[in-house]
Amino acid sequence: MHQLEKMFRPASVAVIGASNDPDKLGGRTLLHLRELGYRGRIYPINVTAKQVQGLPAWPSVRDLPEVPDSALMLLPAPLVEPALEECAAKGILHVQVLSSGFAEEGAEGAAMQDRVAALARRHGMRITGPNALGSISPPDGFFGTFSSLLATAQPGPGVIGVATQSGAYGSHIYAAAHLRGIGISRAIATGNEADIDVAAAIDYLAEDAGTRVICASLEGCKDGAALRRALLKAAAARKPVIIMKVGTTEVGAAAAATHTGSLAGEDRIFSAVFRECGAYRAQSIEEMIDIAYLCAIAPLPPNDAVGVLTVSGGIGVLMADACIEAGLSVPPMPDAAMARIREIQPVAGGRNPIDTTAQLNGRMHVFEAISQEMLRGAELGCFLFYLAHLGRNVPRFPPLEQTLAALRQAAPDRLVVAVMTSVEEIRTRLEALGVPVFEDPTRAVKAVTGAARLRALQAAATAPKDVAAAAPRHVAAGNEAAAKALLAEIGVKVLPEHVCAEAGQAVLAADAVGYPVVMKILSDDIPHKTEIGGVLLNLPDADAVRQGFTTLMQRAGAARPDAKLDGVLVAPMVRGGVETIIGVQRDPIFGPMVMFGLGGVSVELFRDVAFASAPLTPERAAALVESVQGARLLAGWRGAPALDKAALVQALCAVAAFAAAQPGIESIEINPFLVQAQGGVALDALVAMRAP
Amino acid sequence: MHQLEKMFRPASVAVIGASNDPDKLGGRTLLHLRELGYRGRIYPINVTAKQVQGLPAWPSVRDLPEVPDSALMLLPAPLVEPALEECAAKGILHVQVLSSGFAEEGAEGAAMQDRVAALARRHGMRITGPNALGSISPPDGFFGTFSSLLATAQPGPGVIGVATQSGAYGSHIYAAAHLRGIGISRAIATGNEADIDVAAAIDYLAEDAGTRVICASLEGCKDGAALRRALLKAAAARKPVIIMKVGTTEVGAAAAATHTGSLAGEDRIFSAVFRECGAYRAQSIEEMIDIAYLCAIAPLPPNDAVGVLTVSGGIGVLMADACIEAGLSVPPMPDAAMARIREIQPVAGGRNPIDTTAQLNGRMHVFEAISQEMLRGAELGCFLFYLAHLGRNVPRFPPLEQTLAALRQAAPDRLVVAVMTSVEEIRTRLEALGVPVFEDPTRAVKAVTGAARLRALQAAATAPKDVAAAAPRHVAAGNEAAAKALLAEIGVKVLPEHVCAEAGQAVLAADAVGYPVVMKILSDDIPHKTEIGGVLLNLPDADAVRQGFTTLMQRAGAARPDAKLDGVLVAPMVRGGVETIIGVQRDPIFGPMVMFGLGGVSVELFRDVAFASAPLTPERAAALVESVQGARLLAGWRGAPALDKAALVQALCAVAAFAAAQPGIESIEINPFLVQAQGGVALDALVAMRAP
Repeated sequence: MHQLEKMFRPASVAVIGASNDPDKLGGRTLLHLRELGYRGRIYPINVTAKQVQGLPAWPSVRDLPEVPDSALMLLPAPLVEPALEECAAKGILHVQVLSSGFAEEGAEGAAMQDRVAALARRHGMRITGPNALGSISPPDGFFGTFSSLLATAQPGPGVIGVATQSGAYGSHIYAAAHLRGIGISRAIATGNEADIDVAAAIDYLAEDAGTRVICASLEGCKDGAALRRALLKAAAARKPVIIMKVGTTEVGAAAAATHTGSLAGEDRIFSAVFRECGAYRAQSIEEMIDIAYLCAIAPLPPNDAVGVLTVSGGIGVLMADACIEAGLSVPPMPDAAMARIREIQPVAGGRNPIDTTAQLNGRMHVFEAISQEMLRGAELGCFLFYLAHLGRNVPRFPPLEQTLAALRQAAPDRLVVAVMTSVEEIRTRLEALGVPVFEDPTRAVKAVTGAARLRALQAAATAPKDVAAAAPRHVAAGNEAAAKALLAEIGVKVLPEHVCAEAGQAVLAADAVGYPVVMKILSDDIPHKTEIGGVLLNLPDADAVRQGFTTLMQRAGAARPDAKLDGVLVAPMVRGGVETIIGVQRDPIFGPMVMFGLGGVSVELFRDVAFASAPLTPERAAALVESVQGARLLAGWRGAPALDKAALVQALCAVAAFAAAQPGIESIEINPFLVQAQGGVALDALVAMRAP
Repeated sequence: MHQLEKMFRPASVAVIGASNDPDKLGGRTLLHLRELGYRGRIYPINVTAKQVQGLPAWPSVRDLPEVPDSALMLLPAPLVEPALEECAAKGILHVQVLSSGFAEEGAEGAAMQDRVAALARRHGMRITGPNALGSISPPDGFFGTFSSLLATAQPGPGVIGVATQSGAYGSHIYAAAHLRGIGISRAIATGNEADIDVAAAIDYLAEDAGTRVICASLEGCKDGAALRRALLKAAAARKPVIIMKVGTTEVGAAAAATHTGSLAGEDRIFSAVFRECGAYRAQSIEEMIDIAYLCAIAPLPPNDAVGVLTVSGGIGVLMADACIEAGLSVPPMPDAAMARIREIQPVAGGRNPIDTTAQLNGRMHVFEAISQEMLRGAELGCFLFYLAHLGRNVPRFPPLEQTLAALRQAAPDRLVVAVMTSVEEIRTRLEALGVPVFEDPTRAVKAVTGAARLRALQAAATAPKDVAAAAPRHVAAGNEAAAKALLAEIGVKVLPEHVCAEAGQAVLAADAVGYPVVMKILSDDIPHKTEIGGVLLNLPDADAVRQGFTTLMQRAGAARPDAKLDGVLVAPMVRGGVETIIGVQRDPIFGPMVMFGLGGVSVELFRDVAFASAPLTPERAAALVESVQGARLLAGWRGAPALDKAALVQALCAVAAFAAAQPGIESIEINPFLVQAQGGVALDALVAMRAP
């Protein structure tokens, strides 16, 4: 049994701070337990009253005739600590602290909250809150919450589990689900998260037999590893997780040390972690509920190919366009299938979408015949039926219901969706068949897209491997030569380069590496050389190198008179290939995260950059590369030869593995890493160490 | 009176092909006229019956006692032509041809449709269809359509006009509006558009006093000028137009002659025209209806600044994020306003969004006080109230209603939106106050964004100026020198270049323009020089030029043995600046369209390209430039100096004006046009003439 089972589904519950007044939180919570179908034992706790709301009451949990599975705490903040001590003394293992007045109200409250957290840890007690909204389990009739939503809308039983940090966010989800006729298995709002957080709730829901789909919403995360574990557990259980995150936190100050620091927006790192762990990040509550509704009723589509059968050409095209824009495919039916379809309905338009035309009076059976031909004709993962307002026509609908039922039966693993305006009677019957119903064509496509993504995400979900810390390796901050020495050590190719302290030495170096050469100023104090004119390209001969040395020293001296200059780097000039950026940044929540993008303006102008957790496998590194739009340049753009992606993948893996094994590394940036027709080479690099 | 007034709102209507059987289209249409509140005179036309559905019937329109304002034609296709002749003979000026079996069913039907169109033109008769769905005017109780939607959902009267080509698309919009409780003024589905098209319908709705908002949907367009005029008329009348277009048509074959041809996707040209003419292009029917609903009730926000007042921190952040992502601003309240707000509600969180916190039992009046402080504190164009599920709580809602009413009264020009789950009673009362209500926070922000865009689009709406055709100017296709001569002539700077037929001449030319130089092969048969190695850069001296001439001739000869070579271009090498692409492409529907994008990979990899109708004004050219993401490079990227946007604007205007005055020009492409710190220069150019 999961450790939180008795908190989500208690057989007995104490209400600490129970009141007769339903306008008070302790009164309303008790009312919800009494009146909304809870079959467990309820113990009102009230210092003075012998009875509350007609139930026998006790002055303290110490006096109870049994140890209740859970307690709901509604006392004023200053009374919470002593009451929790009493719970601990009684042996109560789960307490939901619904009282407010803690960290959300300032430093004093935060200190009190820390004491509450310590108290819970000390006694091995699991708590939600403080400032939580409580939890519900509609299949058990358990509504352990003061939410005023319940006065007007009581979520029904279902298979969707909801875990949110914010109570109002949670309530909105319950309300929106209720209004769509969608049932809930368990729901919890964790509040200030002194102990139990959304990740812990997801972990429970991933095991809970009553939950098939999980909706979650975060405002932040304190334990990245726990969140990863919980999401992966849900993915392994093939429970779709649809997740939202609002707000962004401060990017760590150390991040400013490298170019990419400012790009490593925390929010996109959350997106990367969600994706890697098999969860779908929704952009709106409506999208979340649409996808959850679909997943609760129907299977995830086994592939990305969609068949569209429609009574309106225009709306068929609208849906096909939306599918293709979302990355799904709408493959044309093969000739043989089309021949049979045209036999059934000679005026049928298109090869997919297929337009039966609206004039179907009395010929509704063509839908069944055409849909079965589409099923036989191509490997379609999903069927979208656009049926206009036929869903409001109860007498005419039976042949369409038969069509959908026959398709579900013939291909139970495919997703079948009806798009139409409809009445509840018809909608309910279709939902029972496993056919979700949407009114808006574009929203239907969006939900199908989410389901298709979830199938792919779950299949690919994987945790970054744990890596043992290696012996610490120190690298001088901002020093290009030191950074490149490190790269060479870990197997990333760098150019034969020489650090030269005077002009004559530079000429010897240039002779050695071969002309033309590149020269760069070298100083820990000048991380951005280009900005001071500290890079000279394409120097053809010894004279140019001698002159270049002087030029670089003068420019550096003029721009940064106080900089300590370590000399000049001389390297061969390289041509061809595509410039990329490889970075690693240690995220305070999720640890080392790899960043990849194209060089030039792609990253900064178009934000065409992607993140992944370190370390990488070659497969994950390849997927990271493919996930940026600019990756098409590597495949051979406009007749150019294809470039060596394997070398890029190897470099990404090497850098990621090193960062994962070196907790002392704050960031690494290779900019540019030149991907060549054969191989790849780091042309510039910076490493930043963590502040000790 | 608008020419179509009597078609949309007839005082008398003939139903040609009226039937007693409501399962037949002619029976159902008559039933809708009889039973849904039409107060005009109805004349069933039936060859044999004396009475139809209890009304006196006539064998032909010729026999009618008056000339009806309009006729609805429901006969089989082969009977339509003679019946139309009878209508013409009677003097009926408007006929809606709802019969199918025309162009949508093949060549024979298309020929019949052409004859119908010619017949109408001949008699000065205006017709919809064939294959139309009819029209409705709910305020008049007029439902001149066979749509089976009306059996289950009858659109109520309102101020939203709907014009669609597709009947099913139209029905879906009516149904979705009906289910949202949104009323309609007039609606029409124009079908095959032998005469009246969506543009004509928009033109009517722009004048119609009963219509305040217009929803339109196109599948194509035959008369671009008429569409522009209709949209501009609506914008001038300050009626928001929300428009959709599905499907794409073939790109003209001539387009393939230049690089940008394949990018000039017809669909993005539609987007540009809609935008220029003040219309908002929606991506889904739901978005269209959301925006129309908002515009029907409330004013467009006078600026892009949004104030968010919320009972939930999480949802406040969700909405603020969505606003900012959509390009709206969420400005923080100034200190003085915040001081007063904290006096009212000490625990209020944030400066905007402002979180009142959920614990407001009995203190609902804080909403009014805080919202009034926000109104005084900053120039906000829109107020978004997130009120959770309070909209379902009828007894508790009055102080909130008072808050919203007071704000509307104090600032009638601002948009005030409530976001909450709600019951109809509360929703209706708020809508009467001019406060739209949305359930989903993200959808609310999307609708507000649409309204804000519409305000800006309407204010900027403008037609491209008419330009008289100039004396035709022929340019040799694919010839760079000829293209550049043309550019020089119209005031676009080009480099001093020389066409050289042999190597010695090339050296003289290089001496004249100054080293280093660029050399390019010149041939009408080789439009893409780079692909055959036909461009040599940075040649430092006479030897290199002499050798270069030979190289280019050899490469051209090897790659295209049959190409006619016109020699080699010698030009000075230019450094610095940012490469852009300036193009003009003659669109078959909308005439010459200007294309602008950055050079390099921006256009092809990131599709960062924008279109505008030619000719341009300097203001419109500047807006075109700013509308591509890459324009930030021109403003001085990463410390580089700002570039000469005025020179770019001047070149865009010159090219656009020339193309507009030269109907013989199919396309012009300057790629690259180099924008420099001072001035700008066309480095390469191609002109294509229209096929004669």
